[in-house]
Amino acid sequence: MYIGIMKRTSFRKWPCSIARTMDLLGDWWTPLVLRELVYGSDRFDDIQAALGIGRNVLAQRLQRLTREGMVERRKYQERPARYAYVATEKGRDFFPVLAAITRWGDRWLDGAKGPPILLRHKTCGEITHGEVVCAHCHADLKLDDVEFEVTPGRAVTLDDRIKSTKRLAAAKARQ
Amino acid sequence: MYIGIMKRTSFRKWPCSIARTMDLLGDWWTPLVLRELVYGSDRFDDIQAALGIGRNVLAQRLQRLTREGMVERRKYQERPARYAYVATEKGRDFFPVLAAITRWGDRWLDGAKGPPILLRHKTCGEITHGEVVCAHCHADLKLDDVEFEVTPGRAVTLDDRIKSTKRLAAAKARQ
Repeated sequence: MYIGIMKRTSFRKWPCSIARTMDLLGDWWTPLVLRELVYGSDRFDDIQAALGIGRNVLAQRLQRLTREGMVERRKYQERPARYAYVATEKGRDFFPVLAAITRWGDRWLDGAKGPPILLRHKTCGEITHGEVVCAHCHADLKLDDVEFEVTPGRAVTLDDRIKSTKRLAAAKARQ
Repeated sequence: MYIGIMKRTSFRKWPCSIARTMDLLGDWWTPLVLRELVYGSDRFDDIQAALGIGRNVLAQRLQRLTREGMVERRKYQERPARYAYVATEKGRDFFPVLAAITRWGDRWLDGAKGPPILLRHKTCGEITHGEVVCAHCHADLKLDDVEFEVTPGRAVTLDDRIKSTKRLAAAKARQ
């Protein structure tokens, strides 16, 4: 663990879903908190124990997720008031992103031990993992098979970026 | 932009591909740097200008990505020495994760304007987006349709977690 001074840029208004999603997540604890909720932990103390996260950090992340509509707080006891934390539809829909991250990590980071948690798809009954496919033709979505196009009327810097893509393609062709 | 003191926990050795992937990425700049490489920017100055990122921060992220084998530095000029940054297979394979994040962000965060960059799948010729599906039956991989199972021999806390999943399912059934 190290302690350092970090400058944090807000990505909230960037015209990019990746940047804006990251801004919402805030830091890497948030996907791990979402992972816990997705695995079925719904109590503050359980999540705290599972992650070994500071109570104030966890409280802050849960507040942010609640404010963003990804998590709902439900009172399950009156005196003293106790709450369970449950992922909303918006929060639950983040699961495919976690599955895509898991797949990449299992492929590129894991050693011989294999993944510690297996995913069973109840629909087909098989142990499985997530694959990212083209929503249209359902073939695997690979970088080599896609092109980026700027929506008309959007920022010039994006146009420049596409030009840069073309330059790269030209450079590759020359290799 | 705010400046704060952050304590950073290392997730590198956690038995979880999500945590370990996050540890590698380090902070949210890294996926944005990868995004730039994926869009085809390969020059330090281009990436720096596109993201408005500090030169030292970008240099650090590119070094980390290079050390992790996600990015390769290629000399394209001798005097003065100049380098292009190109995603390796490991780096390019991160694109589906970015596509999954983009999809979630487009669905849950964007306003009426729609996504600024469109993805064309050259394989089928259509404007598309990524969907995360079951690798086995190719149906959409949704949280409601999966169960988590602990690999035999793994940590007890994961067993506890699965028990907790069952508790949640029981609680839901009572609703």
